[in-house]
Formats: sequence, C-alpha cells, structure tokens
Amino acid sequence: MKIDAVDFFYLAMPEIEDIADGSQDALVVRVRAGDHVGWGECEAAPLVSIASWCCPPSHSVCRPLHESVIGQTIDSVSDIERIHRLVHTRSLDLLQADHTLSGIDMALWDLLGRRLKTPVYRLLGYKRAYPKIAYASLLFGDDPQTTLERGREVRARGFRAAKFGWGPFGHGTVEADAAQTHAAREGLGEEATLLIDAGTVWRNDVEAARARLPALEECNVTWLEEPFVTGAFQAYRELSRQSDRVGIASGEGCHNVELAVNMLENASLQFIQIDAGRIGGITAGKQVADEAARRGVTFVNHTFTTQLALSASLQPFAGLENHRLCEYPAAPTSLGRDLTTTRLTPNSAGELKLSNGPGLGVEPDLEVIRKYLRDIEISADGKVLYSTPSVYG
Amino acid sequence: MKIDAVDFFYLAMPEIEDIADGSQDALVVRVRAGDHVGWGECEAAPLVSIASWCCPPSHSVCRPLHESVIGQTIDSVSDIERIHRLVHTRSLDLLQADHTLSGIDMALWDLLGRRLKTPVYRLLGYKRAYPKIAYASLLFGDDPQTTLERGREVRARGFRAAKFGWGPFGHGTVEADAAQTHAAREGLGEEATLLIDAGTVWRNDVEAARARLPALEECNVTWLEEPFVTGAFQAYRELSRQSDRVGIASGEGCHNVELAVNMLENASLQFIQIDAGRIGGITAGKQVADEAARRGVTFVNHTFTTQLALSASLQPFAGLENHRLCEYPAAPTSLGRDLTTTRLTPNSAGELKLSNGPGLGVEPDLEVIRKYLRDIEISADGKVLYSTPSVYG
Repeated sequence: MKIDAVDFFYLAMPEIEDIADGSQDALVVRVRAGDHVGWGECEAAPLVSIASWCCPPSHSVCRPLHESVIGQTIDSVSDIERIHRLVHTRSLDLLQADHTLSGIDMALWDLLGRRLKTPVYRLLGYKRAYPKIAYASLLFGDDPQTTLERGREVRARGFRAAKFGWGPFGHGTVEADAAQTHAAREGLGEEATLLIDAGTVWRNDVEAARARLPALEECNVTWLEEPFVTGAFQAYRELSRQSDRVGIASGEGCHNVELAVNMLENASLQFIQIDAGRIGGITAGKQVADEAARRGVTFVNHTFTTQLALSASLQPFAGLENHRLCEYPAAPTSLGRDLTTTRLTPNSAGELKLSNGPGLGVEPDLEVIRKYLRDIEISADGKVLYSTPSVYG
Repeated sequence: MKIDAVDFFYLAMPEIEDIADGSQDALVVRVRAGDHVGWGECEAAPLVSIASWCCPPSHSVCRPLHESVIGQTIDSVSDIERIHRLVHTRSLDLLQADHTLSGIDMALWDLLGRRLKTPVYRLLGYKRAYPKIAYASLLFGDDPQTTLERGREVRARGFRAAKFGWGPFGHGTVEADAAQTHAAREGLGEEATLLIDAGTVWRNDVEAARARLPALEECNVTWLEEPFVTGAFQAYRELSRQSDRVGIASGEGCHNVELAVNMLENASLQFIQIDAGRIGGITAGKQVADEAARRGVTFVNHTFTTQLALSASLQPFAGLENHRLCEYPAAPTSLGRDLTTTRLTPNSAGELKLSNGPGLGVEPDLEVIRKYLRDIEISADGKVLYSTPSVYG
C-alpha cells in the first residue's frame, strides 16, 4: 500500500485573539493510501508547516517533506519509522520538519490502526490504556476573582486537577502572582491537584522564578511549568535545586527527540510535557516516554487544541500506569471543541480513558473542517505549490 | 528612525542539484528605515522563512515576525536587542523565528553601520578585525581522484587550509573513507590544515565515527565535523573522549543561542561552528562567540552561500585573535559568487580580512538579485500575504 495523498487543512477561528489560547487554529492532516485514510494534526503556525511541505528544495538535505512521504509504502509500524529516517536525512536543514512530520505521523498511525482495527496504543506495544487524571487546562483570569471563578467552574464539572497559566502571571509583582495562585487554590478547593504554568515568562531568570516559590508551596502546587524557555537548562537545574516541594515541569517546546532527551538529562525536571503535534508525532512522543520512564521522570502530554491532537498526545504514555496526570483542554474554542464527532470526556471521577476504537479513536467532522477552513494558495514562478485541498475530495 | 520596510528576495539557481551545495539558493533581506538601507541573508528554506514572516497569527506567542519588526525604532544597537526580545516573546512558538530573524538582524547591523560609517565589528565592541586563515570549503569528489584534484586546485589558489565534506563520505566502508581522506591530504600537501566534514551521516552512532579516527589521525586531520546530528550531545561527548588527536567540531545546526550554549556545555567540542544566517544573526553569533571564548572553545563561522552571508558570519568573532580559522565557500554557484559587487578574497598568505567599509562592507548587486529572483506569492482567503517585492522599488 502506497501513500497516495497528504492533505493539509488550515482551520482557524474567524478572529484570532491576542491570548495564549492555542485552540484558535489547527492544521489538520489527512493521509490517504489506497482505500485507507488517517488523520493527524500539527501544532501551531499552519502556514509555516504547509510551506515546509511544499517548498522548493534548497540542496540535498534541505528538501520539502512531500518528497519523503508521497509514494512511500505504509503497511506496518516499521514503515513509519523508515519515513521518519528519510525525513530526518533529507530535511536535516529544514527546521520545521519534525513539526510538520508530527501531523503526518499521527495520520499514519491512525491509518494503520483503522486498517488493522486496533487502537494505536496497542500498535505501540502497550497492552492497555490506563485511565489518566485529566487536569483542566485553563488561562489565568485578568484578576484573581476571575481565576477563582474558573477554578470553581471546573471543580463543579468534576475535574480533580487543574492548571492555570499565562494571562497576567509573572508580568506583575510577586504579590500579584501570589494572589492569583491563592485564588486558583480557593476556587479549586483543597483536595484538587493544582498546577501553575508561567509560560516561559522569566526566560532564564532564576531569581524571578524563585521569588514565586513560597506562595506556590503555601498553595500546595504540584508543579511550576515553564518558568524558563525550553533551552535554559542551567536555569532549570538551579531552580529545581532550590525547590523542595514544588516540582518543575517543562518540555512542550521540544521540537525533536534529541532536544527532549537533552532536557531530561540536563534540566532536572520532575515532569516532561510533550506535544505530539510538535515533536515529531506519536513515534517521537513514545521515544521520549520510554526515556522519561527509564529516568524516573513523569511524562505528561501537552495539548491545548482539539480532541484529535488530544488522542494522539495521549497514546505515547497510555500504558504507563504511574504517569497519572494528563492535560485536557477544558475551555477550547468552538473549533477545538467541535472538530471531532467522537469526544474524549473525563468521567465522574475526573478520569480520562482513551477510546478502544481503531486508530486514534476519534472521527473528524468534515462539515466542521469545511466551516473553519482557510483558503491558502502558494505559488512560485506561476506554478501552484499548494492550494487548499477539497474536504470531500 | 523607524523600520519602514523589510523585503525578502528568494534567489535560486535555475536547477537545484541534489548535492550538499548550500549556495544554490539564498534568501536575501533588505531593510529600509527612512533614507537608510541594510542587507542580510537567511540560510536555507527561503519559502519557509517567508511564511514565518507573513503568516497569520496562531495565538499570543505564535505571531509572524513582521509584527515585531515593521514600525520599530532603529537608532542604536540596543534597538536591535530590543527587537530580538520582542520576537522571542511574540514568536515563542514559531520555530522558524530565529532563522528568519537572522537575515533581518544582519540587515539592521548593516544599516546601522552604514549610517554611522562604521564596520559592524566595531559596533560589536571589537577594536579590530584580525585576519583569519581561510579554509576552502569543498565537497568530496565522487571518487578519491576527484577529491585529490580538488585539493590540488585550492592549494594552487593559495589556500593554506581546506575542508572536504559530504558526497560519499560515511556512506560506504571505513576503507573507502580512508582512501578519500588520504586523497584529500595528498592533494592539499603536507603543510596545509585539513578538515573533514561528515555531514551528520552517523546520526548518533559513536562506533561508526570512531572507526574513521585512525585514518584521520594518519592524515593529521585537525577536526572531524558533524559526525552526529546537532542534538546528539552524548554521542559527541563519547567520541571526543575517544579522540586524542582529532578535534571534534559542530554547531551549524544551532538555531538559537540556548542550543549553542547547551552544546558548548554538554558536547565536549573543540570547535563550535555558527551560521549567523540561522542562529539569529550577528547578535546571536556574538553571544555564542563570547561564551565559546570564555569556555576555551574555538569559534568558527559556518558559511556555504554568498559573500553577504560570509561577511555577516565573520563579524561575531572578528576580534578574537586566537580563533584563527574561517570557512570560505571556495566553489560556490554563480549566484553565490556574484551576489555582491564587493568581494572578500583571501590574500596570497591564504588569509581573509574583513572590509573596513561601513556596515558589512559588501554591496549586493541589484542586477544579480533580479537575475536569480523567484516570483513567489502567498495568499489567504484571497488576500495576498506576500508577493515578491520590486528590486528597484
């Protein structure tokens, strides 16, 4: 069976707000091979990923992804691994390659799973998918009262864990951040797991991050996420050394396996958060999950978009029983919410279970794709390199 | 003075050969502020960099670069640093950001230097630009005899150092690579500095690289470059431990300062090779040069394209007297050769000196830009996001 077509659908809300809500757009990928189909999704900057798919080559190792994917055989897991090697060799100097490969990789796993009538996590070698405690992933309110109300709301919805991030956090005083953290704890109640996401706001400033630790400790925060940019390993190590009770989490910025492994080795993390839509798909995510488990670091998915991305990001650690938390986009846009007809919803115990359906176990709604689709065209010297494909084609 | 316009010119040879010759295309950047102009160049994948300049935003920290550049004040070096901070904050999730910023950064330094009638290296704080020993950067021939002839040729041209890379090296047997290495040494003569570039061919396979060391030692090779991919720190450390006489060089894949610093800290390199067209321009290159000097690692430019890119890549370590070698594209395409009217050419002692002219000291030839220009158009929902700008506009 050969890969006949890879279609990229750039979906977006009518207006993109200037807030850290990653569910405002999505780059959905459909792979066709014979009568079979699979779906995936690339995280962020859809136009840039499309460009890396269709760009003219620069030289022997800076080539567009389509050259390494179209026409390739896809009959087994080893074919996916082979395509990764091909992309990594032929697109070595194409920085966006793993980003773009991510959605293709997911779609290939989905396609294989559908064809073999098997969930992806089984193809990955896991006997079962353990339920995860879904943490509601939320943005801080502009003021503590709004944050408190958001905490109350997700608690009422049955979540046992929640994460607050971005918004004003880290941009004002230590006291303002303490007030936000206390509000989050108050809204969520004493029992729930509380996580705080600083969104890289201190870049590599250890002292700024350290100053926030007392309030986080008072509020029994389980982790402080992304105090620094992904590559600031030394700052991560120093902060981790100074933080007894609050774990340090990071990793969503990892855009290839090597970076994640180096982060595991050098950043003293307790939690590594991997976005399968960025790091190179489910294949890359599984490699990091294996490495994290080996090193005693807890793997967590990073997902702030659709249920398609959610299912894909959960597969790599579905079978790791002790890696209990998972990120759940609790307040996505209508695009993020509606993309799939099948949905993953936490049960009354606040736990999320992967579908036992074949592949990724979620079905994109073609009408929703059509509704949010952007019409993109890229041409070079009068020749069309990319134009938005037909949804029903 | 405000930045009024940033023009991206995608230049390419009529045919892109499937060889590791990075001079087959170029993304040239022109920045205008009032009556002033500056020029820069981004390394590799021009269409992808253009997309990251003009793409619609995804959310608050995944925004196109034009938002952080157009309209900004540019009166001093601190304005360049401010623009970097803005890009790093607003385009945190845009992986290509530093790649694209590279050419803009060079153009801003060039513009400031022209305006102040000062070479860029002086604006960087260097009192003088020390001459470098230019090594001729060449591809291995398909057979040892061709390699030998290429060595003889650059020796006859007066080069005191040369690097051979890519082609068949690492793809066949240990003996075949030994024959190539001996041929390179024979062609170059006993006195010259010989460097070998494996082009990441062994990915992270330490044993494959180690097997080549005896021949490299016999041929008195100064460094083995890129035996592994950029992120394979552990493999680099292990090989370095096992190599007494051959230094290990790498770094051209560094696409931001953090990655280069982590590489300096964890990969046991003797030489770090930075491409100002990829890492975030002259500003980022200078940060790495400072860090390398502090750690006793030798900084080298990576340049395989035009003289504009060459001048920009030399600025960050121009004033480091003991960092003696520099890469010189010795056999570029006509595009790479002809882009600038002013050229940097090694003297009879095989040494290269930066121009004392203002800015980068090289002048792009508008006719050459026009000759190799590709006509690109990107549109979204019928609105043009990018179209090739007028060269004379």
